[in-house]
Amino acid sequence: MSRRPSQRKPSGPAYGGGRREPPERLYIYGLHPVEAALANPRRTVLAAFATENALRRLEERGVRFPSPPEIVHPKKIDALVPADAVHQGCVLEVAPLEPPTSADFEGMRLIVVLDQVTDPHNVGAVMRSAVALGADAIVTTRRHSPVESGVLAKSASGALDMIPHVEARNLARLLADLGERGFQRIGLDSEGDSPLEEIAFAPKVALVMGSEGKGLRQGTRAVCDALARLDMPGPIKSLNVSNAAVLALYIARRGSRAVEE
Amino acid sequence: MSRRPSQRKPSGPAYGGGRREPPERLYIYGLHPVEAALANPRRTVLAAFATENALRRLEERGVRFPSPPEIVHPKKIDALVPADAVHQGCVLEVAPLEPPTSADFEGMRLIVVLDQVTDPHNVGAVMRSAVALGADAIVTTRRHSPVESGVLAKSASGALDMIPHVEARNLARLLADLGERGFQRIGLDSEGDSPLEEIAFAPKVALVMGSEGKGLRQGTRAVCDALARLDMPGPIKSLNVSNAAVLALYIARRGSRAVEE
Repeated sequence: MSRRPSQRKPSGPAYGGGRREPPERLYIYGLHPVEAALANPRRTVLAAFATENALRRLEERGVRFPSPPEIVHPKKIDALVPADAVHQGCVLEVAPLEPPTSADFEGMRLIVVLDQVTDPHNVGAVMRSAVALGADAIVTTRRHSPVESGVLAKSASGALDMIPHVEARNLARLLADLGERGFQRIGLDSEGDSPLEEIAFAPKVALVMGSEGKGLRQGTRAVCDALARLDMPGPIKSLNVSNAAVLALYIARRGSRAVEE
Repeated sequence: MSRRPSQRKPSGPAYGGGRREPPERLYIYGLHPVEAALANPRRTVLAAFATENALRRLEERGVRFPSPPEIVHPKKIDALVPADAVHQGCVLEVAPLEPPTSADFEGMRLIVVLDQVTDPHNVGAVMRSAVALGADAIVTTRRHSPVESGVLAKSASGALDMIPHVEARNLARLLADLGERGFQRIGLDSEGDSPLEEIAFAPKVALVMGSEGKGLRQGTRAVCDALARLDMPGPIKSLNVSNAAVLALYIARRGSRAVEE
């Protein structure tokens, strides 16, 4: 296992480019994220560090390292991760994942699209719920979104290595492409025409969600096939984005399944 | 407006007592939490500080202060709140709320109970979703739960001042009391007997949820009328507690409503 930075450079993704270069390496920490990264054949591990305790816990879970991790004192790991990170004694230095291309949308049926959601905790939490609810991919916007990071990986609790993640530079173009591939693009919007429960779901659905403050951008809204609301009966009318996402995924899955049955 | 600590001492709550004293004062910051605290007649405000900008934004929203806040530089507010807190230029120094007593459960129909959930971000997020989904109260355990704090108030986005919050020292006793008051106590548990969707809901429901790592304690589980699962179709089988809570509230509300109709 080498500690040199990855030699692989991401090839131009279908909707990629843009100003910000993805990081050459990142640190994935915590038991679940480390386990998921090691189980992901698409993930290149550059180095691994663990405390004796953490290594034992990982081995008990059947986790296999490509080569034995360096056994270190917890302080060594503290130095590699953010100040308040709960690293549970293990960290991997990894290369970022190769971004998926539009061809990867073939065969998919439920996609979550985040329009300029910036908080890595939120994006990570949405990824986790998306994997749990059986979504096939997550799309974020390239600018105004967190790059793949350790914080995101930890919030995603392993999901970062379990679901394709497309970073779109041009979201309107990606949504147009999804439309041509038969996806019904449903934008979640507090001003939406009908409650999400009342949407007649197509077999292939892309749920498009904006940031909490700003919602969907006008250009994003314009390209959606339908705009739907999540009506809240209580005095607070909006959920945080990860809570809204899990509810929208649940409703969409139920609706799509009902179509089939 | 006085800056002396509150003279009100919480009277013995029905399920209270215990080792930890509630704080004598706390700082509530951020536009939504400050607005909700000022709108809450049960909340005693000891002092208020705002930047000129924040005061204008609050006034535009129709917020009224009991007496004019002290106009300060943002740095003054930085010093009152946690290091990375997004205070948006306003902070209130307040007394903790009087804890509700069991009599307050009269007339309620949907209650969220958290068994030893410790992260204030999580408890705050659950509070916000509980208010949005129309729940009537939230119960936490007195030990192993965050005391009412600014972090919790911020995560709750105003909900802390919009929903009664009971801190139970003896959760089993509180759940027994809820049972006598006609509440169906449903524990969320990955080993539950049936999916939550298949529960025959009573008109009054208490949803009982444990922490992510440990789940419900044995004593909590034993006193529930039913144990139910949230089945996840994807490869990740569990949601974080606030995502699980919003989904459980949605399903329970729908189920309870169906009973009535």
